[in-house]
Amino acid sequence: MNRTAVEPSPRLLPKTIKTLFEPGQIMAAQVPKELCRQTLGMINIDPLQTGGRLPRQSREVLLEWADGYSVCDFCAGRLDEISNPPISAFVHGDLPKFIGMDEARVTNGARESKFAVMHSMTKPGDTIVVDANAHYSTYVAAERAGLKVALVPNSGSPGYLIDPEGYAAAIEKDKPALAVLTWPDGSYGNLTDARAVSRICAEYQVPLLLNGAYAVGRMPVNGSDVGCAFLAGSGHKSMASSGPVGVLGVAKEFAGRVLRRSERFKNKEVELLGCTARGATVMTMIASFPHVAARVRNWEDEVSKARWFSACMEELGIVQLGQKPHNHDLLFLEAEPLFEISKKAKDGRYFLYKELKARRIHGIKPGLTKHFKLSTYGVSREDLKLVIEAFQDILRAN
Amino acid sequence: MNRTAVEPSPRLLPKTIKTLFEPGQIMAAQVPKELCRQTLGMINIDPLQTGGRLPRQSREVLLEWADGYSVCDFCAGRLDEISNPPISAFVHGDLPKFIGMDEARVTNGARESKFAVMHSMTKPGDTIVVDANAHYSTYVAAERAGLKVALVPNSGSPGYLIDPEGYAAAIEKDKPALAVLTWPDGSYGNLTDARAVSRICAEYQVPLLLNGAYAVGRMPVNGSDVGCAFLAGSGHKSMASSGPVGVLGVAKEFAGRVLRRSERFKNKEVELLGCTARGATVMTMIASFPHVAARVRNWEDEVSKARWFSACMEELGIVQLGQKPHNHDLLFLEAEPLFEISKKAKDGRYFLYKELKARRIHGIKPGLTKHFKLSTYGVSREDLKLVIEAFQDILRAN
Repeated sequence: MNRTAVEPSPRLLPKTIKTLFEPGQIMAAQVPKELCRQTLGMINIDPLQTGGRLPRQSREVLLEWADGYSVCDFCAGRLDEISNPPISAFVHGDLPKFIGMDEARVTNGARESKFAVMHSMTKPGDTIVVDANAHYSTYVAAERAGLKVALVPNSGSPGYLIDPEGYAAAIEKDKPALAVLTWPDGSYGNLTDARAVSRICAEYQVPLLLNGAYAVGRMPVNGSDVGCAFLAGSGHKSMASSGPVGVLGVAKEFAGRVLRRSERFKNKEVELLGCTARGATVMTMIASFPHVAARVRNWEDEVSKARWFSACMEELGIVQLGQKPHNHDLLFLEAEPLFEISKKAKDGRYFLYKELKARRIHGIKPGLTKHFKLSTYGVSREDLKLVIEAFQDILRAN
Repeated sequence: MNRTAVEPSPRLLPKTIKTLFEPGQIMAAQVPKELCRQTLGMINIDPLQTGGRLPRQSREVLLEWADGYSVCDFCAGRLDEISNPPISAFVHGDLPKFIGMDEARVTNGARESKFAVMHSMTKPGDTIVVDANAHYSTYVAAERAGLKVALVPNSGSPGYLIDPEGYAAAIEKDKPALAVLTWPDGSYGNLTDARAVSRICAEYQVPLLLNGAYAVGRMPVNGSDVGCAFLAGSGHKSMASSGPVGVLGVAKEFAGRVLRRSERFKNKEVELLGCTARGATVMTMIASFPHVAARVRNWEDEVSKARWFSACMEELGIVQLGQKPHNHDLLFLEAEPLFEISKKAKDGRYFLYKELKARRIHGIKPGLTKHFKLSTYGVSREDLKLVIEAFQDILRAN
């Protein structure tokens, strides 16, 4: 054969990686060890994971719908209109009400929601204005859509605050097609005044996309109150769902554009490629919904728990960066004392990870000691006490 | 607030849909009836579903990784490079070997694979050449990418065959940026001579995307043997995986373009938005892989079973359209006798669906009688005999 190379060959991963299975291998009756999850049963403070744990009942629902395309048993052509299982009632009833947006859809994740908005609201070469604390996937979605990104700066250490007025300056300078606010950002857990940003965007008639991947499903969020045109949420990060799955809220003014139908296939939404989370993922989101709707009402308690945890860590000489007092369970910590220990520790910068692992605590990235993130969301005060005592121990013993 | 409408308001779904849950509702300990799957335990001949059923062990693995972002326990930044669980070995070892492509990735589904290829290999306004039997999601992906679609016609009833030479004619006329062959198509289950199409595309230096959503995981497929530049597969349709999840194979000449990295985030692949099937879905694909790799070796038996079933149906006056003898488990049937019955039946065009449901047979779309699709894949001869007897019964009694 004689394919045309339209691009130079990339630097591919070296092919030294072994295959997982031998040819002809039939799996044993037991789940093989390498497909078991090693962190189950540990105290989990991983920021990616604390809001994504399934309540027991959703695990049963997951099994019920485990097979591929199971939710399509009675589909008449579009995922969000399936009435058995009751996806339609959820997507057009519970979900828009819960997030306070005119229209809602289930997507494959917050990044897919963001790309769908960017791709339909802009054209290649346009500029979008984004807060400097944005998640990498916001940049990558913009890059995929061929957009330039203009940043609203943060205040730098220790607060990394976003001044809403920064949006006015950036919008005046860059005439963006869209503004994005990460609310809260995934690093510092800062909750910028979203209404102030929204008012500024409205003044300049720039639609605002609120990335609520760490908000929707953890804390009360009402997109209409904020005044955003679009709201992205993450099922696996914050809605107790098996991933990948997310949500997209759209104000009615923009629904015709972002949720436009195919010219040839009149009931298919183009940006969603017809259907998105067409499997068990959406069923866990539905099954977890009563749990999620209930837990957002405990948000004040989650915040006071995060503040208490932060204060305990500060007593150990570990400083919390970002907003203070803090308003979210995502905590970014600066730990000079641990960094000092790592310089002399046998395991070097991996010592902290190993010390915590030995104490059955999971969630701080291997190799980090000076700066790391964690989340207290849904972790009991008893378990958090064990985490604090672990840090105490580690500091004392090293 | 004062958002700018950039598009006229769309015709939204009427808001008469009730919510699924009451405010404050806590779910009962038992899975509520409306979240149970009604078709479990039935004989399933749904073309969407026969290749997506999970083997028992994958259901256990699914539970192990049920929580949101569980697979990211030890992620260093990219899904396909995670070594615990062994996603890296699967994506870079087993998978490219299995599909015979230089590079492979796991995606959110075949349609997402197709869009990633179209979006990176073309620019808006370009034309792509597509077989007339293509799945709707090929058109919608092309529409999302701003492409014109030129069709290679089929031969019409009864064969709906695609002549590979049609690609030469379409390419000469339309100078496409990409060609797509649906292999097999999801309606008739026709397997066009893909090598012939590939040779023609190579002659004109047009890269070929093979949509193997109903091939990869059911039957032996080797992209290099075919000579395609890209191969899309579906986990939930044909790889015994919990959806949504798919695969994308890429020839090395095009990997630098389709799998290009972000300029700002050097290890993130732009078309995949950094990561794709970042959840339990990829784990079921891995867990099912030995089962899937074994079953493709039984393909000849699957084909002979489909032919036998087709012949039995023809004896009842139900005619199989598409290739004959048939080479795939997807069967498109034309059933004049059932259509005649439906004109007088109490339940009208729903009579067939209800008759089959009463016999615990699932998979033919409600409301269809004259033309319908089914699949014999992985269904035992004993169960298929019950299906044939059911049709016999229904024809006799009405």
